[in-house]
Amino acid sequence: MRLSRYFLPVMKETPADAQIISHKLMLRAGMIRQTAAGIYAWLPLGLRVLRRIEKIIREEQARAGALELLMPTLQTADLWRESGRYDAYGPEMLRIKDRHNRELLYGPTNEEMITALIRDNLQSYRDLPRIFYHIQWKFRDEVRPRFGVMRGREFLMKDAYSFDIDETAGRHNYNRMFVAYLNSFSRLGLRAIPMQADTGPIGGDLSHEFIVLAPNGESDVFYHSNWEQPTRHIEADFDDPKALQSIVNDHISDYAATDEKRDPLREAQAGDKLRQSRGIEVGHIFFFGTKYSKPMGFTLPGPDGKPIPIQMGSYGIGISRLLGAIIEASHDDNGIIWPEAVAPYHVGLINLRIDDENCRAIADSLYQRLEAAGIDTLYDDRNERGGAKFATMDLIGLPWQVVIGPKGAEKGVVELKNRANGEKQTISVENAFNLLTAGHQQR
Amino acid sequence: MRLSRYFLPVMKETPADAQIISHKLMLRAGMIRQTAAGIYAWLPLGLRVLRRIEKIIREEQARAGALELLMPTLQTADLWRESGRYDAYGPEMLRIKDRHNRELLYGPTNEEMITALIRDNLQSYRDLPRIFYHIQWKFRDEVRPRFGVMRGREFLMKDAYSFDIDETAGRHNYNRMFVAYLNSFSRLGLRAIPMQADTGPIGGDLSHEFIVLAPNGESDVFYHSNWEQPTRHIEADFDDPKALQSIVNDHISDYAATDEKRDPLREAQAGDKLRQSRGIEVGHIFFFGTKYSKPMGFTLPGPDGKPIPIQMGSYGIGISRLLGAIIEASHDDNGIIWPEAVAPYHVGLINLRIDDENCRAIADSLYQRLEAAGIDTLYDDRNERGGAKFATMDLIGLPWQVVIGPKGAEKGVVELKNRANGEKQTISVENAFNLLTAGHQQR
Repeated sequence: MRLSRYFLPVMKETPADAQIISHKLMLRAGMIRQTAAGIYAWLPLGLRVLRRIEKIIREEQARAGALELLMPTLQTADLWRESGRYDAYGPEMLRIKDRHNRELLYGPTNEEMITALIRDNLQSYRDLPRIFYHIQWKFRDEVRPRFGVMRGREFLMKDAYSFDIDETAGRHNYNRMFVAYLNSFSRLGLRAIPMQADTGPIGGDLSHEFIVLAPNGESDVFYHSNWEQPTRHIEADFDDPKALQSIVNDHISDYAATDEKRDPLREAQAGDKLRQSRGIEVGHIFFFGTKYSKPMGFTLPGPDGKPIPIQMGSYGIGISRLLGAIIEASHDDNGIIWPEAVAPYHVGLINLRIDDENCRAIADSLYQRLEAAGIDTLYDDRNERGGAKFATMDLIGLPWQVVIGPKGAEKGVVELKNRANGEKQTISVENAFNLLTAGHQQR
Repeated sequence: MRLSRYFLPVMKETPADAQIISHKLMLRAGMIRQTAAGIYAWLPLGLRVLRRIEKIIREEQARAGALELLMPTLQTADLWRESGRYDAYGPEMLRIKDRHNRELLYGPTNEEMITALIRDNLQSYRDLPRIFYHIQWKFRDEVRPRFGVMRGREFLMKDAYSFDIDETAGRHNYNRMFVAYLNSFSRLGLRAIPMQADTGPIGGDLSHEFIVLAPNGESDVFYHSNWEQPTRHIEADFDDPKALQSIVNDHISDYAATDEKRDPLREAQAGDKLRQSRGIEVGHIFFFGTKYSKPMGFTLPGPDGKPIPIQMGSYGIGISRLLGAIIEASHDDNGIIWPEAVAPYHVGLINLRIDDENCRAIADSLYQRLEAAGIDTLYDDRNERGGAKFATMDLIGLPWQVVIGPKGAEKGVVELKNRANGEKQTISVENAFNLLTAGHQQR
């Protein structure tokens, strides 16, 4: 993409209304703009990151056997009366009346709707196990929305729901999602630690939060230093309950707890390996058995024909919030440092002198070759000062920068910069192309 | 995808509440379920088609130079007061109050929001021309929602907005979208005819509707028989205003008009080439100059520094409605006939006897090879009667069916059926694989 044809309204000044670094950087980098309290428009650069995160989460949901569908944003109040949550939910639920005075609401979550949908469309216990998920905009009317997309009102969430004929199968599906979450966050470049959690208004007695460590996190967390090891992708057989359970056990054996769930005994055992930090919740999973299926009358005939109430769980990832969490975990004084997997573009190509024929020829040609090789490239071909171009590229945090200036152009060399570690090398155009495309193969 | 692990709640009976064929077939084929009046959940099969349509539309928007962003579903009433449309819009606008009693609305369209967003983030006439689009759920509170996704209340729309410094440039952007629409509909397997249109509440004096011919269409249309020729993809240079104008002129030279816009003189000229049919509106484009920029104060300094009010247009495609339109245009007594470009899966693989080892080995192996070759395959590996399997495959309308039965399996042959023309051939497994993967190359 040529910047001369793009829409990247970067801001030099730090916006006064932004308190935390991710909010400041998303505004400054031209990724989002607020359109109402806690409601944001996603500009082209921000939307690209959102889509990359969605794609990774979809792939890991599919790998774990979850089926994608899409439920609408608006729901009927009657549906929530079936479960008894309509009156219980409180002022965070946005309640709406349509032209015929029928009560609707903007869905904050979808347990009721998916329960009714699956209840009305399955025939037998043989149709289970199943996990369904969707990625849809939700609304929670926060009393004081703040921190940008970290605590917005209209937000994008992946929510999955599992359906099983007994608790053993239900645990298996819970473990599928547990492992899918480990892999999803790892691919996003995040170390997310699963911690035992309270279940709150969702219900149930088995629940884990996935928490990313970040200095600006919303809550205190305590953990064993083993959690500081780098993550790796887990090659799991999702159809093997024992293997999955063993992976889950491995990941809850090292101590990690939120403030409310601290365990003095295990902290003493950890000794000088105990660490404290702040954390951001990026995922939350629940197993709540028959909490919704019973009041909503979702049973299926079992092998003997008798109706069995269905065991359910739900599994959320705050996708729009993840952008904030990733930036909180990965930035420096100059701006964002995107992990490669979610970077909006792989390469930022800077032509320092658009009126220099040499520079222009080299930059145009490299841009076309990179694009043809499938490397997403943002090409700064604008008539701007070099300083502004460097600052913009550092701010938006693409993994690689290629700088083409008149002196280098004469010798056929460019400067290649790694945004994460700041390392620069002056190399031939050909070597730059090879390095950037080789990196692409490994992604 | 194995059907034994999928969610495809097909219905044998025609649902009583569905009046038109596309609505009936989408319900029967397990693509959608209604969750409230005019509001639908998209089941896995329906969602796949929706995503394929989105992808084609995105590609053609990008080719024409439009930039994707994403605006939220909820908007403030104050924004619509700036343009004067808040009071004018009427009961189709879903009006909402949040917990602080602030007035919101569920966006039925986005002229106001995009005008404010771009106004606040551009500096100079040099930042133009631009076209922005998003694909987002919208809400219109239809008094009598009906015809399934054809006239729903919560619906998915692609809406684009153009910004230009003068009318000539504005016309150029209008023509970009005009040609992008011709190509989009053509790739979707539709013959959509552009017809001069009234501008209604959007405003302006230049407007075209794109109308698909279908017996169940909502309105009468009249056209020259030249429009019956097959469509083809137009290789356009979108940066060449003259070339684009000439393509547009070519496509408005043959007579075509809605009931309100009939021209007796041109109909007389068409003589026995005049055709009459019913039509479904699938796209609508508008050029309305300064209708929004003036009241909302969107000017940019021109070359002499004086403020110039911005010329705008807007360009909509009803994406969820397109599924209905495609089915209305492409079905038979047995079910849907998907055009290849939007089919949810390319191949339906039927194993007639899952307890026959021979059948199972051939079917499993062919399924794995097709998937490995990138051919999306829906594999009916369920324990069901052959008749039910055939009926389901015809109903959901995948372009190709491969049937594996015990007699053929002994000889190593399968039956390959083309859903559109019903032609069947009995061929070796190897030839079936080659035909199906060769077809994939040409897509």
